Amino acid sequence: MPKLILVRHGQSQWNLENRFTGWWDVDLTEKGVAEAKAAGDLLKEKGVLPTVAFTSFQTRAIKTLHYALEGCGRLWIPETKDWRLNERHYGGLTGLDKQETRDRHGDEQVHIWRRSFDVPPPDMDAGSEYDLSADPRYAGIDVPRTESLKLTIERVLPYWESAILPVLASGETVIISAHGNSLRALVKHLSGISDEDITGLEIPTGQPIVYEFDADMVPGERYYLKDS
Amino acid sequence: MPKLILVRHGQSQWNLENRFTGWWDVDLTEKGVAEAKAAGDLLKEKGVLPTVAFTSFQTRAIKTLHYALEGCGRLWIPETKDWRLNERHYGGLTGLDKQETRDRHGDEQVHIWRRSFDVPPPDMDAGSEYDLSADPRYAGIDVPRTESLKLTIERVLPYWESAILPVLASGETVIISAHGNSLRALVKHLSGISDEDITGLEIPTGQPIVYEFDADMVPGERYYLKDS
Repeated sequence: MPKLILVRHGQSQWNLENRFTGWWDVDLTEKGVAEAKAAGDLLKEKGVLPTVAFTSFQTRAIKTLHYALEGCGRLWIPETKDWRLNERHYGGLTGLDKQETRDRHGDEQVHIWRRSFDVPPPDMDAGSEYDLSADPRYAGIDVPRTESLKLTIERVLPYWESAILPVLASGETVIISAHGNSLRALVKHLSGISDEDITGLEIPTGQPIVYEFDADMVPGERYYLKDS
Repeated sequence: MPKLILVRHGQSQWNLENRFTGWWDVDLTEKGVAEAKAAGDLLKEKGVLPTVAFTSFQTRAIKTLHYALEGCGRLWIPETKDWRLNERHYGGLTGLDKQETRDRHGDEQVHIWRRSFDVPPPDMDAGSEYDLSADPRYAGIDVPRTESLKLTIERVLPYWESAILPVLASGETVIISAHGNSLRALVKHLSGISDEDITGLEIPTGQPIVYEFDADMVPGERYYLKDS
């Protein structure tokens, strides 16, 4: 039966520095690399071997995918990268240290930006050093200036429906290596989580989450592969 | 104009041990990793940035591609893996140390197997520890029991024509990370090298080779990127 494996990228440099990252392309730390390799080892140990892979346009997710695939002997499977699996765009908060942001905007406002379902942070300024709208990676793509979780979901789910679900329905074991919020979008959809509850759901880094689907493509309960 | 970059994978463990490798999936050595990273640095330095990537089903070529793409900031480009870019299948020689093979079969016979255009080595025994015909990676593929360079060309060129050339013709900068003999197949075709001469042409590891194409998709002289 079809099986879906979700992996959030391992620790990145800006996770470590506690800065808002969003679409900015930050590399994994050594710890992040180790987390990705451990995910691959776990896939191998449990015999849950992906046959098709999807990831975002962001280095930390792509490298997590590659380390995980190498760890389970599956570096050769087809992989597709798409910007719609990118992290939520943090707009004008991108690059800011979280404590500085709280000092400047107040705890409550920062909490709203991080935890509300549909309130996006302020737009990124055009010409900001973190503005990626002219990056060749995003040529032909209308790079958001900011995103709420709701807006993130609105680009993740159409991609899920059109590109990933048909592959899964053909019987493949699909792995998606992505980000906290693009994975929240999928988990919200697959596990039927409310708008209120999804913002508080933490997806741990480097920890494979599995859904098994029945013949009607109805997903079962999600579980951590380590607990199976 | 369209540009083609060919990269032979960096040193593998069996290159180092001087063993016939072929389709066996051997990892890069530390030196091989360094060669792959240096290829990426050179692409970046010269501003020759791939937009689409192809590689084989073999770890050493896939990892070389990933290190090279990461080095030039292009890990996000689309990549396609295909068995038709694999190394020549060395049949019954797979896994043998080259000196041992010479001791057993004689210098002249080994020279013929390595350097003739159309004489394949002996078939791999069914059930050999190096037999990959039951490997899930090659499900649905008629894994060769041995290949001459001629037989290698006969699977590389149709893939070139059907999958790579159309992408190149659309104006992309294509990188192919592959193997000594699958790259010989392409260089023979693109540079019009004779059957006799191609077997003596050495493709150096980790050294990007470039072809530029004109509007009629006629390739110019090949050159090493380092010399440009």
